[in-house]
Amino acid sequence: MKDKLKELDSITGIKDITGIHGVFDIDSLQKDYSSLAQREISHNKIVPSLEEAVRLCGLKDGQTISFHHHFRGGDYIVNMVVDKLAEMGFKNLVLAPSSLTDCHAPLIKHIQNGVIRRIETSGLRGKLAEAVSHGLMETPVVFRSHGGRAYAIETGELPIDVAFLGAPSCDPFGNANGYSRDNDKGVKCGSMGYAKCDAQYAKKTVIITNNIVHFPNVPFGIPESDVDYIVKVEEIGDPAGIMTGATRFTTNPKELVMAETAAEVIEASGRLVNGFSFQTGTGGASLAVSRFLREKMLARGVTASFALGGITGSIVDLHEEGLIKKLLDVQGFDLRAADSLKTNHFHHQISAEYYASPRGTGATVNQLDVVVLSALEADVNFNVNVLTGSDGLIRGAIGGHQDTAYGASVSIVVCPLTRGRLPCIVDRVGTIVTPGKTVDVIVTEHGIAVNPERGDLKERFVAARLPIFPIEELRSMVEKLVGKPDPVEYTDRVVGLVTYRDGSVIDLIRQVK
Amino acid sequence: MKDKLKELDSITGIKDITGIHGVFDIDSLQKDYSSLAQREISHNKIVPSLEEAVRLCGLKDGQTISFHHHFRGGDYIVNMVVDKLAEMGFKNLVLAPSSLTDCHAPLIKHIQNGVIRRIETSGLRGKLAEAVSHGLMETPVVFRSHGGRAYAIETGELPIDVAFLGAPSCDPFGNANGYSRDNDKGVKCGSMGYAKCDAQYAKKTVIITNNIVHFPNVPFGIPESDVDYIVKVEEIGDPAGIMTGATRFTTNPKELVMAETAAEVIEASGRLVNGFSFQTGTGGASLAVSRFLREKMLARGVTASFALGGITGSIVDLHEEGLIKKLLDVQGFDLRAADSLKTNHFHHQISAEYYASPRGTGATVNQLDVVVLSALEADVNFNVNVLTGSDGLIRGAIGGHQDTAYGASVSIVVCPLTRGRLPCIVDRVGTIVTPGKTVDVIVTEHGIAVNPERGDLKERFVAARLPIFPIEELRSMVEKLVGKPDPVEYTDRVVGLVTYRDGSVIDLIRQVK
Repeated sequence: MKDKLKELDSITGIKDITGIHGVFDIDSLQKDYSSLAQREISHNKIVPSLEEAVRLCGLKDGQTISFHHHFRGGDYIVNMVVDKLAEMGFKNLVLAPSSLTDCHAPLIKHIQNGVIRRIETSGLRGKLAEAVSHGLMETPVVFRSHGGRAYAIETGELPIDVAFLGAPSCDPFGNANGYSRDNDKGVKCGSMGYAKCDAQYAKKTVIITNNIVHFPNVPFGIPESDVDYIVKVEEIGDPAGIMTGATRFTTNPKELVMAETAAEVIEASGRLVNGFSFQTGTGGASLAVSRFLREKMLARGVTASFALGGITGSIVDLHEEGLIKKLLDVQGFDLRAADSLKTNHFHHQISAEYYASPRGTGATVNQLDVVVLSALEADVNFNVNVLTGSDGLIRGAIGGHQDTAYGASVSIVVCPLTRGRLPCIVDRVGTIVTPGKTVDVIVTEHGIAVNPERGDLKERFVAARLPIFPIEELRSMVEKLVGKPDPVEYTDRVVGLVTYRDGSVIDLIRQVK
Repeated sequence: MKDKLKELDSITGIKDITGIHGVFDIDSLQKDYSSLAQREISHNKIVPSLEEAVRLCGLKDGQTISFHHHFRGGDYIVNMVVDKLAEMGFKNLVLAPSSLTDCHAPLIKHIQNGVIRRIETSGLRGKLAEAVSHGLMETPVVFRSHGGRAYAIETGELPIDVAFLGAPSCDPFGNANGYSRDNDKGVKCGSMGYAKCDAQYAKKTVIITNNIVHFPNVPFGIPESDVDYIVKVEEIGDPAGIMTGATRFTTNPKELVMAETAAEVIEASGRLVNGFSFQTGTGGASLAVSRFLREKMLARGVTASFALGGITGSIVDLHEEGLIKKLLDVQGFDLRAADSLKTNHFHHQISAEYYASPRGTGATVNQLDVVVLSALEADVNFNVNVLTGSDGLIRGAIGGHQDTAYGASVSIVVCPLTRGRLPCIVDRVGTIVTPGKTVDVIVTEHGIAVNPERGDLKERFVAARLPIFPIEELRSMVEKLVGKPDPVEYTDRVVGLVTYRDGSVIDLIRQVK
């Protein structure tokens, strides 16, 4: 054969052809005669230990490792991996998870001893967040929205060297998912939307699972083509922390009032028509909106084309009732959402990029008619803070807040006037996360404020006799109620960079004195 | 805000952070207040004409354009686009469809007048193939397998400038699919597996459809994130050519004998156990194997874990009967397969990469226990030709032949001793497409031959009393039956480069005298 092909270089036009690798070498062929059953046991991507996976990935000091936060407060993976990397002697790593929660306090010691040099995340909570706020890290933590993170990853601006991704099921060749179709063993987290782009773009991807299932584990959250190694461990997370049985409706009267008002705002906005689309964020009032929306949809005979984002059991109820045609799920919030993803044909798992990336070809957030979001604080310029508390400490996450507020044609932020003795409508939020220009309506328990840029909405709300106030008036009420608290004292040192979706810096978080 | 952030450059560690784009510019924000319904009509990716889409893509002379062949013999897209590009005055284009069929004869004139400089494809048939065989093109046509093409695209060795992809349904933002969930209008082609990697890797992607459906068209074959422009046209293909109603079982007695023997070979190979996996290729005998396999599966109480590849109605029957757990579908062969993809939860659309790319992280072909493939010719070294006829003319396609023969632990090639007066078991195939080292068993209507490398299989076949012959003996029978035809006369000129999966050249096709 080679003989026949020796003229290859002399063929007319051959120089014009790319991707031709000389002459085929028959001796290079090594066909695998083993059966699928044998390969599942031996010729697969499962390696004996996490340590071995790290070695095979060729991880080096200073490189970037990533994780997903689909296991929420029940996550064992981040601590497990960073403990191991510390033990192996790694230093100066960049930790770039999609988010971090209360359960990641053990990272403090790894920051102190130099294993972790810096962090990029959507959010920080608990002791780790407090420590960062008090100046734990030399380099500020970079906060990105879910869409902003996906964009940074896909453009190569946040290059991931190794992604360590926990998965409730994985076959021996790497098809991984947030639940299992083969058994009801172990944990489930539903959609693995944030993990999908890590797996796709990381130089190496390691799946960590306690549940190896038969090939092919399809439909999958992460395809085998994006996976290099698999590590089997005893436990990947605490089911109680990963998923509560169901998202409970709030019984807080203030939240219920706000939820009902938000539903009225949606109705009055003119967007509650057949084929409309919406997303509800986390937080009691925001989640409760779906209940009031349901009644209005039934009364008007209106169905939604899709609901987006973090999916909850109450959204699933509406879907199964026929009120929402399709669910686009980047993250499940409860067991019912995870089970629905497994069962319902039109409950579709989407990636963080597809959900919210600000790239040119568009994302689903851009097709939202309405989003209902929560807030720690909002200010008279409609800016919203979901990242720092009134004590100046970090205690939240950007999540998809910036992405959906921008994308939705009507963005509604639900925020009480006060929480306890703390003002929530203020002159200037402690940290600007979502710029006021993208926030259309603020709903409080006392009434609503409409962004001056949205004269179109205000007109409709007036006609619907909604309780509209200038935002400054709501601010005055707050001041009358709780006065002006002493300002938080900060040092000059910057402990956090809050970025907008495109990677520009929108605000700085300083060290609390 | 800018004022507060002016210190950005002086922040400790900022130089260490990648992907930070200065300070957020609030004035850059332009939020879209229109509703989803309005955006579906106006703010979307639909452009008024194909010409406009081409202009927006910035296509230039000499660049590479790609297409899929999911519309098979009913495709209108390739001719429509190349006619338009000719009209617009483009020259020297590289045409890189996943395959070409009989209906693409009109390309001849565009090659003659210099619009198309060269072609990369899996196959060529009809008048275009004949013309190429007779020396139509200056530069040889490059033939790649489905896996080899995906590999060349994903590694950047076959860079696609603009992909023009026909789709039976597409929403206004680009989510496209091979059928429609919203209506039964228009054509359907089932899986769009080959088109998926074009959309993912092309610099620009244009969807051409006759059926704009509401957002979100999910689940999708191609996600909106991979789509730049959409063109609506009257017709994208001829339903009769795209899909026959159902793949008919062959009634050819010779083919039925071979199909039954192939099923016996599978049984005797020891691979017919619970959880086994298989693929049947095109061609009467190969397709008919599933019928005989069904009986053996029922008799043994065996179910398959998955069937792969081009999916047919008869494979769907087995799936719905519970005999095959999952279907991994890169291409549907008939209407029943397309309808099943739409309906069956475990009928899963996969990309060409996922199906067959020879990259490091693996592809599903590697998990095949058994594949049954057809052949135009096979030779005494077990090499197989599926590309050129005994007259030397191009009349076929590599398809997934190389990929599955390599990946499957038992690869079975079904090939009659003769077709009419033409020998099909020969001394040396006219064109080596699939190397003998990856072909384990050849099944003819008279008996089978086992590759000498597979002593393990031969032992089992002897025990099962299958009619085994040395391949040379089958060759002798053929010669006795039809004699030795006069050799085809070729010129020295090379008209086709046949590549193996990795892009190396495995054989040359010469101009027929």
